[in-house]
Amino acid sequence: MIKVGVVGGTGYTGVELLRILAGHPAVKLTAITSRGEAGQRVSDMFPSLRRRVDLHFVAPEDAALEQCDAVFFATPNGVAMKQAAALVAAGVRVIDLAADFRLRDVAEWEKWYGMRHAAPELVAEAVYGLAEVNREEIRKARVLANPGCYPTAVQLGLLPLVEAGVVALDCLIADAKSGVSGAGRKAAVANLYVEATDSFKAYGVGGHRHLPEISQGLSRAAGGRAIGLTFVPHLTPMVRGIHATLYARLTREVSEADLQALFEARFAGETFVDVMPPGSHPETRSVRASNDCRIAVHRPQGGDTVVVLSVIDNLVKGAAGQAVQNMNIMFGEEESLGLVMLPVSP
Amino acid sequence: MIKVGVVGGTGYTGVELLRILAGHPAVKLTAITSRGEAGQRVSDMFPSLRRRVDLHFVAPEDAALEQCDAVFFATPNGVAMKQAAALVAAGVRVIDLAADFRLRDVAEWEKWYGMRHAAPELVAEAVYGLAEVNREEIRKARVLANPGCYPTAVQLGLLPLVEAGVVALDCLIADAKSGVSGAGRKAAVANLYVEATDSFKAYGVGGHRHLPEISQGLSRAAGGRAIGLTFVPHLTPMVRGIHATLYARLTREVSEADLQALFEARFAGETFVDVMPPGSHPETRSVRASNDCRIAVHRPQGGDTVVVLSVIDNLVKGAAGQAVQNMNIMFGEEESLGLVMLPVSP
Amino acid sequence: MIKVGVVGGTGYTGVELLRILAGHPAVKLTAITSRGEAGQRVSDMFPSLRRRVDLHFVAPEDAALEQCDAVFFATPNGVAMKQAAALVAAGVRVIDLAADFRLRDVAEWEKWYGMRHAAPELVAEAVYGLAEVNREEIRKARVLANPGCYPTAVQLGLLPLVEAGVVALDCLIADAKSGVSGAGRKAAVANLYVEATDSFKAYGVGGHRHLPEISQGLSRAAGGRAIGLTFVPHLTPMVRGIHATLYARLTREVSEADLQALFEARFAGETFVDVMPPGSHPETRSVRASNDCRIAVHRPQGGDTVVVLSVIDNLVKGAAGQAVQNMNIMFGEEESLGLVMLPVSP
Amino acid sequence: MIKVGVVGGTGYTGVELLRILAGHPAVKLTAITSRGEAGQRVSDMFPSLRRRVDLHFVAPEDAALEQCDAVFFATPNGVAMKQAAALVAAGVRVIDLAADFRLRDVAEWEKWYGMRHAAPELVAEAVYGLAEVNREEIRKARVLANPGCYPTAVQLGLLPLVEAGVVALDCLIADAKSGVSGAGRKAAVANLYVEATDSFKAYGVGGHRHLPEISQGLSRAAGGRAIGLTFVPHLTPMVRGIHATLYARLTREVSEADLQALFEARFAGETFVDVMPPGSHPETRSVRASNDCRIAVHRPQGGDTVVVLSVIDNLVKGAAGQAVQNMNIMFGEEESLGLVMLPVSP
Repeated sequence: MIKVGVVGGTGYTGVELLRILAGHPAVKLTAITSRGEAGQRVSDMFPSLRRRVDLHFVAPEDAALEQCDAVFFATPNGVAMKQAAALVAAGVRVIDLAADFRLRDVAEWEKWYGMRHAAPELVAEAVYGLAEVNREEIRKARVLANPGCYPTAVQLGLLPLVEAGVVALDCLIADAKSGVSGAGRKAAVANLYVEATDSFKAYGVGGHRHLPEISQGLSRAAGGRAIGLTFVPHLTPMVRGIHATLYARLTREVSEADLQALFEARFAGETFVDVMPPGSHPETRSVRASNDCRIAVHRPQGGDTVVVLSVIDNLVKGAAGQAVQNMNIMFGEEESLGLVMLPVSP
Repeated sequence: MIKVGVVGGTGYTGVELLRILAGHPAVKLTAITSRGEAGQRVSDMFPSLRRRVDLHFVAPEDAALEQCDAVFFATPNGVAMKQAAALVAAGVRVIDLAADFRLRDVAEWEKWYGMRHAAPELVAEAVYGLAEVNREEIRKARVLANPGCYPTAVQLGLLPLVEAGVVALDCLIADAKSGVSGAGRKAAVANLYVEATDSFKAYGVGGHRHLPEISQGLSRAAGGRAIGLTFVPHLTPMVRGIHATLYARLTREVSEADLQALFEARFAGETFVDVMPPGSHPETRSVRASNDCRIAVHRPQGGDTVVVLSVIDNLVKGAAGQAVQNMNIMFGEEESLGLVMLPVSP
Repeated sequence: MIKVGVVGGTGYTGVELLRILAGHPAVKLTAITSRGEAGQRVSDMFPSLRRRVDLHFVAPEDAALEQCDAVFFATPNGVAMKQAAALVAAGVRVIDLAADFRLRDVAEWEKWYGMRHAAPELVAEAVYGLAEVNREEIRKARVLANPGCYPTAVQLGLLPLVEAGVVALDCLIADAKSGVSGAGRKAAVANLYVEATDSFKAYGVGGHRHLPEISQGLSRAAGGRAIGLTFVPHLTPMVRGIHATLYARLTREVSEADLQALFEARFAGETFVDVMPPGSHPETRSVRASNDCRIAVHRPQGGDTVVVLSVIDNLVKGAAGQAVQNMNIMFGEEESLGLVMLPVSP
Repeated sequence: MIKVGVVGGTGYTGVELLRILAGHPAVKLTAITSRGEAGQRVSDMFPSLRRRVDLHFVAPEDAALEQCDAVFFATPNGVAMKQAAALVAAGVRVIDLAADFRLRDVAEWEKWYGMRHAAPELVAEAVYGLAEVNREEIRKARVLANPGCYPTAVQLGLLPLVEAGVVALDCLIADAKSGVSGAGRKAAVANLYVEATDSFKAYGVGGHRHLPEISQGLSRAAGGRAIGLTFVPHLTPMVRGIHATLYARLTREVSEADLQALFEARFAGETFVDVMPPGSHPETRSVRASNDCRIAVHRPQGGDTVVVLSVIDNLVKGAAGQAVQNMNIMFGEEESLGLVMLPVSP
């Protein structure tokens, strides 16, 4: 059994991680920390866990995390980078669901995240946890940077095109729509039911932190070439789900059938990526509460613009599920262990 | 392995049954019938089942259902009653998720359901599948009448009071609220998104088919005495979930603490019924996609009206999950086998 | 023109009041106060008011409210009671949308609201603003207590029965469901989109502040007799709307037709109360964004329990619209002036 | 008073038209036709109209439409084209909310709409009713083609860029999101509450009928040059509203400030188009139930891609409201008469 600790289990990513870990056959959940909630039963805060998760939140200093095999950080940005070094030194493998180790360029990270990085030396060794790209490196990672939700959906959708070198890299467009759980479980007027329901809006058009993360991943896939990406996130009135609508211009003739074949070949053998048949329109609910990503590729009106539709559950493949997928790889388990959850639809 | 057939798998109850059965370790799903969809892949209709349920719908006559161990009917009312006798004769155990075998009084059934009953002799032997009342009879049932969604939530909430004989039986009130999936997957203007969202209404105040079913169950719990129940169902803009708010008048003094103890004792040992601590207000989402029922009991302002709050997921404990719970009992499996699904919340 | 000031315009009641007042032909909106937002354009906070409401929030001390004809308080409880006396002394008529002047029994008010009342002498003269009961007194009110949202829906639904003396007063039940805007525009985790959507729950079963207000009104209608009321509020995932399902026991035989006639007679001539035809089930959306209350009366299964369904928009007839209705009466205007807004449905 | 008839008042566009016309001070609503509902009270189908619209549906042949001044067609595509000629001959001015007269190229219309056009001669004289482009022609139109919902939002957002000639015309992208009311009030499984809520999807990526309509309008704005547009519509779980996110590549340097000025100048004096301040993200709810269009323009990261955000209420500015705006122009009334409805938000 893998002894697992969770730092910060009071947000939506945290409770989803608990839901998955509680049903994972190879995991022994040993500690959940929260300074603010120390002493409270976890299931008092999340009644959905009643009689299934019998743990109390503990203060970080009482958690004996260094005795765990793996520690997940489901914390705000800037927390894991302060604690990771000590855990790594104690032989613990760290999986950060926040952004601390996602960007290899520390200066760029500091610009986008507005703080000084506390562990630049760990950034250098950290592994970006997109298994569909990086599986071998993940296996031996000591510090795992779990991808952001938008970057997961956008990269999986664009990788086949970028890797194949068939689209222009200077005018990629990612028009992405997220459910409200992506905004986290913090009390803010903008996230109130009455503010967010029955309405639709873009946000962060001027610049969003997931932009450099996506560009880094696509640039790597393009052999280091620069990426010109316009990324516009939107808030849509639903709980879970990301729908990325991706636009790229073909630089040479590729038929719609060949595009389809390109995507199918790229993800053949991937447990969690489902390339749908030609003409499909994946719905976010078709992946709800599961670790799946569904993708469809179109070439409308025979023009030179390719449209890719990519959907995930932001809390699962976009956060907690992908983190457990990475843990499975790191500990030599079957990659899908504890993750074969059928989507809940309707 | 239990060889299972499903008749009518194209509604919400059907797809939920498939989701649960597909993950059940002791079940081999052998056939899904649908006359209208024969030949179609099940996962083409329900993309959430892609790569997990690899079956096609077959016409009923091609399904070889008589070779199954158990056949579930996830059909409209009036279908199972026509096919059950032949299956029972072939040694198949029949689990009907519709209403055909729920009412012991055939004349009353015919009045409420507006059709002639095709198998009154099976009504006599059919077992009502509320395990928390009826476990022993279920074990040997050949025809299992799976309870309605409202009747499940209402009976579980009122049984402790009625069995203990502490409330007036002539003025029980069940004010129940259901998510829209309870209305089924039929194309009707009233169930359109635009009609049902962001609004709330009662329906069927003059009389609803679940009224006699609830009264029958409570009467049985009251040793056969008559029940005077006012049952008002409502439609609330959510997908899954029933919230029953139940009102009963005490006929003798019982303190709030004793009421709490009464409920806790009644459901001690029940895997799927969770009596919450005093002062609780269960939310439907705390049982979403799970087979749990959560109950809280109140005595507001120290008056003689008891208020019970009871929540279930209508598609699980109110339909498909409870049907699988009954199958487990009927086939001697652990009652919770394949049903330990943590609620999906948020 | 009636010169109007608004104290506290940053909540949902406030912005709805602005929407209505901005279109009112006899109103000149002169000041909106908010200490926290002083200097900000109102339409920067509420873009729906852009180019229609050209005002800035001002600090209360800069608002010259005493020069208004009427001042609305769309503030938390406990604010109006501190400022009303000075305004009344200056000849301003005060309309409080909060609860400060709703309960005639100051001790009971202090018990339920948990604070000392600052103006008990004004409580004595304040008029409860339910025009369908109180129209003549409202005409000359200097301090108007605008009813709560639940009390409006519940009282209008029960008044005909209570006034006619045909139901038992000791076991009335009000099972009420509110949209989330009733919880106000404050940043609280419980009101987040992700917490409130796709779920249903009761709250405050042990005791809710609107209980004494309803009881006071019904008792008055019953000639001062005591009222035994069980009031259970629920939160339903929609923005606007209250649906009250009301249960009362007949104390003498009254046919369903006579009940219908009773309700129709009671509200004949009322502009904002619509008694629907027998067998109706009013939906909250049928009154959305309007000042209407729709009511239907049932006697299910011919039993002695009467069921009344009463729906309003909590922000309009339950708050801002009713306040403007009261203002119209107080200033001798047509009662419906500026309030003939057709419901927005869908 | 303008004597108005409505053909087909049973859909969402129809009921919204009735809501607006019922409050319009210069309109006398004389007939509403529906073959299927002839004889039924309009307010029995739409309770929100109770006591405000006192009309019955009549069969088309009983409606005496030729005695109206204006007749609105709120019908499926293909109806108006059959009846318009007779009405025009009788001196009636026809306003078609469907697509029959929107495309000038009859062959292209027949390809996209899959039927033979019944009145090509009227297509030639019909006027496209986008007042912000076409006001003078609208004034004297006998047949008015009211624009589609997506085309309204997309054209208003792109027109300033296209007219100014500052963007490439061969790679325009319109990623548009619509509320579910856009799918109409027909009983179809795909539009059920349970199917459409809490999920997000694209549809019609291969080709949508609004594509040629948008291209026609933009081409006209570009002096007849060809338009290369990728248009991807999506369904988002809300009732009303369209959010168009528009992407265009600059062909010469235009600063963000100059883009802002360009938009402000283009729509100066337009009653119903609100160019928001730099950095804004309009929400669909900020125009709910109003005839407004709100637009914001961005140039993210200083790149050469311009992003325009454009929101409307699809039932108002995208249908019924715009139709009334056109009627006002056609009959010499103030353009905003009966349309100064403040958005309902929340």
